[in-house]
Amino acid sequence: MKYYISSKLKKMMHGGDYNPDQWINTPEIWDEDMRLMKLSGCNVMSIGIFAWAALEPEEGIFEFGWLDTIMNKLADNGCYAVLATPSGSKPAWLSRAYPEVCRGDADGHRQPHHGRHNHCRTSPVYRDKSQLINRKLAERYKDHPAVLVWHVSNEYNGQDCHCKLCYKAFQDWLRVRYDNDINKLNHAYWSAFWSHTYPDWSYVEPVDPSIHGLMLDWERFKTKQTIDFFKNEIVPLKELTPDIPITTNFMTESKTLDYWAFAKAVDVISWDSYPGWHEKGDDVKEAARIAMHHDINRSMKNGKPWMLMESVPSIPTRGRVKKRKEPGMHLLSSLQAVAHGSDTVQYFQWRKSRGGLEKFHGAVVDHVGTENTRVFRDVSEVGHKLAMLDDVVGSTVKADVALILDWENEWALDLGAKVYLGDNVKYREECVSHYTPFWENSVSVDVIDQTCSLDSYKLVVIPMSYMLRPGFADKVASYVENGGTAVMTYWSAVVNESDLCMLGGIPGQGLRKVFGVWEEESQSYYKDETVSFSVIANNSLGLTGSYKAVDTCSVVHAEGAEVLAVFEDTYFAGSPAITVNSYGKGKAYYLACRNKTEFLNDFYEKLIADLSVKRCLVGLPEGVVALNRTDGENKYTFLMNFNDDARTVAFDDTYIDLLTGKSVAGSVNMKKFDVMVLES
Amino acid sequence: MKYYISSKLKKMMHGGDYNPDQWINTPEIWDEDMRLMKLSGCNVMSIGIFAWAALEPEEGIFEFGWLDTIMNKLADNGCYAVLATPSGSKPAWLSRAYPEVCRGDADGHRQPHHGRHNHCRTSPVYRDKSQLINRKLAERYKDHPAVLVWHVSNEYNGQDCHCKLCYKAFQDWLRVRYDNDINKLNHAYWSAFWSHTYPDWSYVEPVDPSIHGLMLDWERFKTKQTIDFFKNEIVPLKELTPDIPITTNFMTESKTLDYWAFAKAVDVISWDSYPGWHEKGDDVKEAARIAMHHDINRSMKNGKPWMLMESVPSIPTRGRVKKRKEPGMHLLSSLQAVAHGSDTVQYFQWRKSRGGLEKFHGAVVDHVGTENTRVFRDVSEVGHKLAMLDDVVGSTVKADVALILDWENEWALDLGAKVYLGDNVKYREECVSHYTPFWENSVSVDVIDQTCSLDSYKLVVIPMSYMLRPGFADKVASYVENGGTAVMTYWSAVVNESDLCMLGGIPGQGLRKVFGVWEEESQSYYKDETVSFSVIANNSLGLTGSYKAVDTCSVVHAEGAEVLAVFEDTYFAGSPAITVNSYGKGKAYYLACRNKTEFLNDFYEKLIADLSVKRCLVGLPEGVVALNRTDGENKYTFLMNFNDDARTVAFDDTYIDLLTGKSVAGSVNMKKFDVMVLES
Amino acid sequence: MKYYISSKLKKMMHGGDYNPDQWINTPEIWDEDMRLMKLSGCNVMSIGIFAWAALEPEEGIFEFGWLDTIMNKLADNGCYAVLATPSGSKPAWLSRAYPEVCRGDADGHRQPHHGRHNHCRTSPVYRDKSQLINRKLAERYKDHPAVLVWHVSNEYNGQDCHCKLCYKAFQDWLRVRYDNDINKLNHAYWSAFWSHTYPDWSYVEPVDPSIHGLMLDWERFKTKQTIDFFKNEIVPLKELTPDIPITTNFMTESKTLDYWAFAKAVDVISWDSYPGWHEKGDDVKEAARIAMHHDINRSMKNGKPWMLMESVPSIPTRGRVKKRKEPGMHLLSSLQAVAHGSDTVQYFQWRKSRGGLEKFHGAVVDHVGTENTRVFRDVSEVGHKLAMLDDVVGSTVKADVALILDWENEWALDLGAKVYLGDNVKYREECVSHYTPFWENSVSVDVIDQTCSLDSYKLVVIPMSYMLRPGFADKVASYVENGGTAVMTYWSAVVNESDLCMLGGIPGQGLRKVFGVWEEESQSYYKDETVSFSVIANNSLGLTGSYKAVDTCSVVHAEGAEVLAVFEDTYFAGSPAITVNSYGKGKAYYLACRNKTEFLNDFYEKLIADLSVKRCLVGLPEGVVALNRTDGENKYTFLMNFNDDARTVAFDDTYIDLLTGKSVAGSVNMKKFDVMVLES
Repeated sequence: MKYYISSKLKKMMHGGDYNPDQWINTPEIWDEDMRLMKLSGCNVMSIGIFAWAALEPEEGIFEFGWLDTIMNKLADNGCYAVLATPSGSKPAWLSRAYPEVCRGDADGHRQPHHGRHNHCRTSPVYRDKSQLINRKLAERYKDHPAVLVWHVSNEYNGQDCHCKLCYKAFQDWLRVRYDNDINKLNHAYWSAFWSHTYPDWSYVEPVDPSIHGLMLDWERFKTKQTIDFFKNEIVPLKELTPDIPITTNFMTESKTLDYWAFAKAVDVISWDSYPGWHEKGDDVKEAARIAMHHDINRSMKNGKPWMLMESVPSIPTRGRVKKRKEPGMHLLSSLQAVAHGSDTVQYFQWRKSRGGLEKFHGAVVDHVGTENTRVFRDVSEVGHKLAMLDDVVGSTVKADVALILDWENEWALDLGAKVYLGDNVKYREECVSHYTPFWENSVSVDVIDQTCSLDSYKLVVIPMSYMLRPGFADKVASYVENGGTAVMTYWSAVVNESDLCMLGGIPGQGLRKVFGVWEEESQSYYKDETVSFSVIANNSLGLTGSYKAVDTCSVVHAEGAEVLAVFEDTYFAGSPAITVNSYGKGKAYYLACRNKTEFLNDFYEKLIADLSVKRCLVGLPEGVVALNRTDGENKYTFLMNFNDDARTVAFDDTYIDLLTGKSVAGSVNMKKFDVMVLES
Repeated sequence: MKYYISSKLKKMMHGGDYNPDQWINTPEIWDEDMRLMKLSGCNVMSIGIFAWAALEPEEGIFEFGWLDTIMNKLADNGCYAVLATPSGSKPAWLSRAYPEVCRGDADGHRQPHHGRHNHCRTSPVYRDKSQLINRKLAERYKDHPAVLVWHVSNEYNGQDCHCKLCYKAFQDWLRVRYDNDINKLNHAYWSAFWSHTYPDWSYVEPVDPSIHGLMLDWERFKTKQTIDFFKNEIVPLKELTPDIPITTNFMTESKTLDYWAFAKAVDVISWDSYPGWHEKGDDVKEAARIAMHHDINRSMKNGKPWMLMESVPSIPTRGRVKKRKEPGMHLLSSLQAVAHGSDTVQYFQWRKSRGGLEKFHGAVVDHVGTENTRVFRDVSEVGHKLAMLDDVVGSTVKADVALILDWENEWALDLGAKVYLGDNVKYREECVSHYTPFWENSVSVDVIDQTCSLDSYKLVVIPMSYMLRPGFADKVASYVENGGTAVMTYWSAVVNESDLCMLGGIPGQGLRKVFGVWEEESQSYYKDETVSFSVIANNSLGLTGSYKAVDTCSVVHAEGAEVLAVFEDTYFAGSPAITVNSYGKGKAYYLACRNKTEFLNDFYEKLIADLSVKRCLVGLPEGVVALNRTDGENKYTFLMNFNDDARTVAFDDTYIDLLTGKSVAGSVNMKKFDVMVLES
Repeated sequence: MKYYISSKLKKMMHGGDYNPDQWINTPEIWDEDMRLMKLSGCNVMSIGIFAWAALEPEEGIFEFGWLDTIMNKLADNGCYAVLATPSGSKPAWLSRAYPEVCRGDADGHRQPHHGRHNHCRTSPVYRDKSQLINRKLAERYKDHPAVLVWHVSNEYNGQDCHCKLCYKAFQDWLRVRYDNDINKLNHAYWSAFWSHTYPDWSYVEPVDPSIHGLMLDWERFKTKQTIDFFKNEIVPLKELTPDIPITTNFMTESKTLDYWAFAKAVDVISWDSYPGWHEKGDDVKEAARIAMHHDINRSMKNGKPWMLMESVPSIPTRGRVKKRKEPGMHLLSSLQAVAHGSDTVQYFQWRKSRGGLEKFHGAVVDHVGTENTRVFRDVSEVGHKLAMLDDVVGSTVKADVALILDWENEWALDLGAKVYLGDNVKYREECVSHYTPFWENSVSVDVIDQTCSLDSYKLVVIPMSYMLRPGFADKVASYVENGGTAVMTYWSAVVNESDLCMLGGIPGQGLRKVFGVWEEESQSYYKDETVSFSVIANNSLGLTGSYKAVDTCSVVHAEGAEVLAVFEDTYFAGSPAITVNSYGKGKAYYLACRNKTEFLNDFYEKLIADLSVKRCLVGLPEGVVALNRTDGENKYTFLMNFNDDARTVAFDDTYIDLLTGKSVAGSVNMKKFDVMVLES
């Protein structure tokens, strides 16, 4: 079974953000672009992302001539367009004619017109104007052969708008959420605290960090309002081009929007991925972090292929020190995305602008303007290699393991748990820590949120699920009862969806019984402190030795669970550090502390073995990872060396490396940053 | 002679902030509270601190039913109430109906209604409304048997309000202060500097950090206006309940209000104490810092018992890393307050709220809701031990030594001396440094300000008294002349009360003659720099050896004083580091540099011996401290081990330990964080 | 040939900022000032800098009585006045009567009246009022014998004013700059980026950091508007006192104004110099940095004498830790300025104020008020020594070497290149690095900007000339073609004057050909990283060995240039690190990386030898520097030891030390911070 992003192009897509509107006065550069696209193996370009001022220079005056020319040139050159709607950056006349389209500050002032992504998501005028330009685009290009995918707006984000329109919409949304009963809201926000009681809806303004439930609802509202805005944008697209798939480029590393909620509204997932290669000194660690984020995007549509919509061929506009991708890394980094399910390698940006904030942001074509640059050659190599992977297009990934990473929980931790854990919250980092041992063992992982089904997994990992969304506790209980294995950590099931603390002991909502433990209190540690714990002899999982916990340890009481390890230090020496409880047909592990790699590797390797979790390849050196894609019949193994020196890999079987067409068997030397795509 | 906080209850008080208004819908929790209070030995609860919205849900509509119930339940269970006025947090309807009650920002905007403690102290409306609710409370509960003490508002602070009402009040206050003569103000502010001359009072706005005298007056005004507000609050209380003592909980560690000025307006002193045990690695050092603050509170009412109004049984809502009190520390920390004169151990908070900023702030009753927690057991132990100390209630402390810590001087140093000393000001830390050697030697110290009498002391220590308040220099001169011993440091007597520099050499206002030195200039040092000084052989105090100064050294010229030590390093090598001058019948020591513990210990031990200053016990190990309370007849010795391991203590006499009822004599092993209360 | 600042006083000037308006009520202090001026050898005082409130206490009411008295006293005591205009700080009545004179914040609010230097440069009212008070001053004192120089305002700076008046003036200035063609502006700002297209001039507001060209023009406008303001101030001065030279005190270390543009408008250059002696542990390094800034001031008027207008006799009001000048440093630091062409040593300030922000800023007369202070003696020594240097007055400096330090380029780097280089921009520090080897070798250097002529130099050094101003590339090409030697670094000639990137490869505008290299890409490094490069054997400059580059390395392709050194590390190992190209009759060196002292010393020593660049003295120990001043006939050699210990210096010739009148020859011991002024 294969899933194609577009039936128009059953090939790996390669290209990038293309801003021909910046070069309207130099059409010879447009022609040079076409030549260079071919030369670099680029077949798909994202067009018009910030072109509103060029498309509608005055209100109601539309100029499509330049875009017609470009679309035709692309088609003539066998190239396709990911056609953008331009709402990400509004033209100056719009802000002046309708000040309501500019965002409001927390003190009630309108922001000036400047920058980008600074429009109000609620403004009826902005919704009308953006829908209108989208309609014009759809009308004009609906039958154009180059149109492949809609790229709606750009990097929607959850920045605050404190205008009156947004407040009214927020209050109306709360009224529905709380059944038109202000007392329900007062209870949910525990507003008796500090006399915060809200007399009616009009008093509820999202400017009070002391009311965690309120600020959490404000985060939810921003995601909801962004999706509403998006849905308004796509009305004419769905109407006029029902067969063109719609995406918007997510910033999956960002906390500001709940992308799981957003994912339901798009046809195909795409995201903008900017790894920090070579910056932090450990590319293997960074590769694991990026792998997890790739997996979130794949999981959002149940494993279907997604689009790497932005990546950079050299260095982005950010950071204090800029590290260029060293030789080999561009291909490896690009194919890593494909290994995790992407059917595209797209860049920001095709050609560097001459001025403005992103003028030095890495691009396929540099200011020098020729193909004679290292970066252009790197990109061309990727184009060349992608062309060899047409068979992989449409294939997918199956995982035995799920990791829960939940945006609403992340908001709740940041808003409501920092008052207790301080800087030690680090939720996303903790998720990466639990993800990495699987990745290191070449095990595919789905990264899902609390709303997803757990039924298909052998193992579900639940780090720091501080806030329980409705139904999740029951789902975990039922999953374990029916034979599943769950791993949960300290600081889980502490509050409900309103950030109200559970009464009666945590983990709450029945999970105390599932895991057979009660967590009484937690202790935080400074960066250089550790707490030792040692494994109980002859424990059921076969762990041995002792380990060092960091950051946070919880004092836990076993209430039926088997104690696998106990703390050695401090006043709670002897209390359980690791437990496992048999519940129904399944098992529920509890980790009472934050752990370092040493323990997590040992622990999950035992579980992988215990549960016969699938591994793509075994016996690989550290930092060399193998992951499969499959269409049900064929299996494609991406083998990647993230070490900055060579490693020897031994194969039991014989494969063909699709990137070279050569046979691979026995003991093979993988160079620094080497990558193979093996078919058996 | 004994002084009782309330004649209603001549016992140690134990309890905490209690917010039954958060649990109105679950009266079964109210009953559980009563059960748990008894179980934990709690007899006094602070009620209604943030209950304005519950007491007056709409303007003029009062709801006392729930509070009646709680007050009766308390009385029925033998428990008392510290009844609060609710002005610390205003209800939402009040901010909307009367926007003037919200504070103004420096740019003239009203702050939105949110948070707490954000009302204008000048607003007539807010003064009327808070007085009205206070009157209602006093009318209703004036004869209720549970009412013990009034807790007026909560943690008044000196945050800025820049509204027009406050500016007008400030300018009217200045008019009085400067005899209705704007030229006096211009001279006091040295406003010719940078052409700042004020044409009339309406120009004087507290927004100019370049005019130190102005900003210093603004600090004074904020304290004055806060006390005014407080006095307005208590009018109906004094009228209707003349026998109920009134307090408000100070934040004595805070710089924002001059609590010495405030102390005169209250009947009994109370403060909120949140030590950072285990956080900075040295509990002995932290104990000394807290001890000094306890002593300020005791000194404010001439040694009469005070109330520890807030403390935390586990961890507060603050800080990056949270360290729970280790076993033993809760009892030790609680009894340390009693040792310094407190007759209460009160907590914030009784029961954790389910939501809001302080939902994880330590409490007697955790979300789990039972007595089966380590914290509840710790609290119960304190309750049990306090019940054994009824004899101590009402006793007081007598000190031979006074340390001057003056809020106005602290403001002046921060506003006017940072331009010279930069980060090296650290006034409060310097006070702690001079306090610690006495504490380490089991010497009681009164910590007073420049307005206090010095007559009763054998020794007065005056660290960094940069700003002289009117009359202080004469008081010091007369004190020494009549036989007193004074120790003063560098950077004293530099400016007058308007932050105008003394002309004619410092220390000014006659102190140059008293101390027999002229301080010409100062040199600052980075954190890792030191300057050596060595003691003059055969000096009159018997000091020997050499020491290392830090942070700041002054170049001083002896003008009649004996030089005890001279600097060894830098261009001022050979100039005096320590001097002593005979003046009248007394002696005046001058320390020309900031010193580390090594010197201060040696120096003050010599003085303690020289002046026959009383020590509670002698020969104690480091970190073990003994302090007395006495009623004139009986003497209670609190013996405390702040070390995190055991210490052996040898006694010459035989005592009874009131906490155990057992006899204590000879050599005794004190465990980590052990505490005894000895009666001979 | 000699150039005198004023024909009235052909002597070294010595004095400082004098604020008698602060002491109007204590005329006995005025008399004491006169006595102390004589005693300290002070002959020139800056008067009235912040005296507007004293001169015009109410609108239109002028009070000159006190100033008459002071001016007469000065004249009677043989002392002169640098008479200030008072616009640096406006009186309070002016801000209230005409709110437009206060600056606007970026959000459109007026700033309150307070502080200083906070007026709008555009406001017609402020221009009128400041011109009027200047006219009154000029009318009254035009014939007064004490008037020597006009000190217009004080430390003009480039702080933003976002008021409507400034925006209108900015837009009008842009209209002229872009030939009344908004499309020219849109192209220059590359505003198609992010749909920023400006429909007309009224949309152009300087609040968008994403448009680098816009923000760069805003910087230019602020300099232009400041000069306009200055020119308006001096109208009555030029009219009424055409023979009195005019200056304003520059802050040459500051980035906020283009002082080269400003220099054309003044008669004599003056600047305020506050070295950080002893603060950073290396006085030699600090001396080089200050030397470079002295040389900028001298170069601004082609070598003519300038005025050290502010320096501090002890410590300024700034910094975290304050280090006083150690013995000897005050004389050395003062004469260092003279060595670089100053004919004055002026201080801020004569007498410490009693209150206000600068009350502890170092002064000749301390609060103690007597001459018996170390600082007063230090100042008197300078006065005494300066009196021996009358022959030096009016002499100048000739340099073979020019270093390009360009304010507009500095702005462009900060605004437009930080997005790529991050914290590694450090332009001014890089200029100091290239300046230091010449200074260490006793070679005089002119420090000029891109608008200056290069013709008279043997060697021109061009560090990081990221932005090319119009005509500069041609000037460099022609300079080299005609036999000059140029040294240029990485990150030069990247953008044009609008911050538009050069197309076709950098260095752009023909410099690729001049230097014979193409710079393809750059790599940044963290602080602790280095990249080795090694010298090619038998290279034409005679370099040997290998070195370590830091911060930034560029990948450069030699296109005709000789490769002198190649990188050893990283993926670009083997590519050129140092090159030289023969172009016309000259040579063009290119440095592809940031270098440390080791390389720059070796490199420039080779070039100094190769080009026979003049050195003042040879064979001096490290940290001992000699520099000449000359009147064409006589040569004065300033020999300075910046080491904090003694050094032995060997002389080939015999000299007279003007400071002692003694003969100097053979081997001489220079003490720590010793200085001589030698005449042969």
